[in-house]
Amino acid sequence: MTSNNQSVQGVPGFKVAGVSAGLKGDGKLDFALIVSDTPCVAAGVFTINRMKAAPVIVDQERLAKKQTGYRAVAINTKCANACTGEQGIANAVQMARWVAERVGCAEDEVLVMSTGVIGTHLPMDKIKHGISLAADALSDSADAWAKAAEAIMTTDTRPKFKAAHVARAEGGSIALNGIAKGAGMIAPNMATMLGVLATNAALTPSSASALLKASADVSFNRIVVDGDMSTNDTVLLLANGTGGDSGDDALLRDALNATSTELAKMIVRDGEGATKFITIQVFGAQDNEQAKQIANTIATSPLVKTAFYGGDANWGRIIAAAGRSGVAVDPKLMKLWVAGGEINRTDLLLFDNAMPTTYDEKQATAIMAESSIHVTLDCGQGKGSAIVWTCDLSHEYVSVNGHYRS
Amino acid sequence: MTSNNQSVQGVPGFKVAGVSAGLKGDGKLDFALIVSDTPCVAAGVFTINRMKAAPVIVDQERLAKKQTGYRAVAINTKCANACTGEQGIANAVQMARWVAERVGCAEDEVLVMSTGVIGTHLPMDKIKHGISLAADALSDSADAWAKAAEAIMTTDTRPKFKAAHVARAEGGSIALNGIAKGAGMIAPNMATMLGVLATNAALTPSSASALLKASADVSFNRIVVDGDMSTNDTVLLLANGTGGDSGDDALLRDALNATSTELAKMIVRDGEGATKFITIQVFGAQDNEQAKQIANTIATSPLVKTAFYGGDANWGRIIAAAGRSGVAVDPKLMKLWVAGGEINRTDLLLFDNAMPTTYDEKQATAIMAESSIHVTLDCGQGKGSAIVWTCDLSHEYVSVNGHYRS
Repeated sequence: MTSNNQSVQGVPGFKVAGVSAGLKGDGKLDFALIVSDTPCVAAGVFTINRMKAAPVIVDQERLAKKQTGYRAVAINTKCANACTGEQGIANAVQMARWVAERVGCAEDEVLVMSTGVIGTHLPMDKIKHGISLAADALSDSADAWAKAAEAIMTTDTRPKFKAAHVARAEGGSIALNGIAKGAGMIAPNMATMLGVLATNAALTPSSASALLKASADVSFNRIVVDGDMSTNDTVLLLANGTGGDSGDDALLRDALNATSTELAKMIVRDGEGATKFITIQVFGAQDNEQAKQIANTIATSPLVKTAFYGGDANWGRIIAAAGRSGVAVDPKLMKLWVAGGEINRTDLLLFDNAMPTTYDEKQATAIMAESSIHVTLDCGQGKGSAIVWTCDLSHEYVSVNGHYRS
Repeated sequence: MTSNNQSVQGVPGFKVAGVSAGLKGDGKLDFALIVSDTPCVAAGVFTINRMKAAPVIVDQERLAKKQTGYRAVAINTKCANACTGEQGIANAVQMARWVAERVGCAEDEVLVMSTGVIGTHLPMDKIKHGISLAADALSDSADAWAKAAEAIMTTDTRPKFKAAHVARAEGGSIALNGIAKGAGMIAPNMATMLGVLATNAALTPSSASALLKASADVSFNRIVVDGDMSTNDTVLLLANGTGGDSGDDALLRDALNATSTELAKMIVRDGEGATKFITIQVFGAQDNEQAKQIANTIATSPLVKTAFYGGDANWGRIIAAAGRSGVAVDPKLMKLWVAGGEINRTDLLLFDNAMPTTYDEKQATAIMAESSIHVTLDCGQGKGSAIVWTCDLSHEYVSVNGHYRS
């Protein structure tokens, strides 16, 4: 397999593994383990779905008690351990306990993540087997990171892995590796996504939390595949401090934001059945929150998404979606452009002064045929702005989700 | 063509027509006209989308000025006359003016409706031609009603027509005919739907408005196809009073509710690409509004809708949708059942006490294979309840909407 990075590296002090525990069958990688040689500061952001999966409940409780001393994160696929009641909690705790035994740490120094089908119990024999295999396979190599990224995939077609290195003014660098999975059930706040960001920077608990939350807000909380929100969404940041103090939080912040944004975009590009990458940029709203609400409504509209899939410049659906967003938009003040490609784009004005412009339909159709499309909406009401990334809605999305469990 | 009614009748005092004005091409019916011999009381319910189409703006202004004296409703397909600015308003008014000239009434005694593609101007020559053809074809026959129902179809595959007759205690009956179109862009409050309800009952303006609003709330505002909300949604009620006072508003109210509900269900059954009719019933919520919010979130979830399409009893997606509905549901208090068929159904309990029951997967799969499925969710928190009707999300939905304009 190939990673998304040209020069991938490990992170000093971390060992990882991706193995086949038999959860998926066919020898596919399905269980990942990330272990730090030394205790880490940890922070997490989680789904706001009321139906939180057992691993989410366990991790949230642990991080609420303390944000220091963490040694490992274990991740299984195929079973979400969600809607599984007390038994689900007990299974998540047992999963952490088995990891702790192998790593040689306390049970509450391990965090767990699960993704897959909702409403079934973890197959604990396979989980135990996976932990054992992964503990034996731990490595600090770039290849091990790539395998871990592959092992957390569900309906993802490609692993999502990004490595960043922040040069320090005084010499040396801080390493930051991120892996993520997404594919479906992706909505703002957040996606069905799991992500782990590991760095050797030294962070305080409060700065780890603040940096992670800020980076999720400009990345993972900006993506929409289908508007559904998962029971399991979790992004964890682990900082083991072996690289010493970064000396400048801004450097790490930029790296964290860039890595998270890159991973978030990878998730959208690999959305279930996605054939197009669409950027929805709204500006001129009364405030940023309203801009985001408009952008999200456009990004989740099935009619907008199917028009993009069909390559149809049916921009009226974009305007109609803005109109039902709940925000008091005014058609007389709005302007709408589309553009193809990601660089050197030329925006084509389609809608102005409450009516269509005399644009060239052929030009609009050519833009819609691009694999990357930029939609820009000026609300003409203020200075609020927001960007959301999304994909189209294709036949393949329906195929994947009509038969996901089978 | 066949109508949805076994014994269809006209409504005394109304003449209608459905003709081919060349809007669709291929000789398909695409323009409808409904004319009353005598002035009618009229009421309307309209989209709450901020991007209101020109005919919506025109009708709302007219009905706000007066609710009496209406003689005709004209409906064109293929062009929504939405996002068309001042020119769109002028075209809608001109359409009404031409109808008035043929009917022999004042221009503001005519209401207009349009449905079709957003962002293009009405082809006024064809509209004029359609008015002329329709005025010549006006008839009080059941067949004319059936043709009018066919002439307002867009991506609908079947006309939607329902006739009701309310027997009066003192002899005779009140007639109520309804036609509607739907198919896509169907969301609560309301659907991309157009509907006209015509009766010979005598109603005051205020009772007409109250009856129509109440009936829309239990019918057209209870249906979801894709969660998108149209710029054009309109339902009009015309009452010409030629049948005398109904003597009992409750009788007419029941007929209106039954007719509207039947038309609304026809819209869902004929939703774009729909293969299944799904009833989402939520009870035990803190209030009716919260119950409706939960039901609508489930009904608009792409993951829930694709699972129904695939016949997969993936109930975890239903629970997850309830969890992200914005309502403070509690998994420990919830119960979820599914049942197949519409009569003599047996509800199968799938989720209870925050975890799956030990239900028989084969039984669940058999239920999901039915063409009509009932989902019941008890929130265990109070006495609020709501029912919403929806359909599944299929490959055909994507096909229809990927290429709607072409």
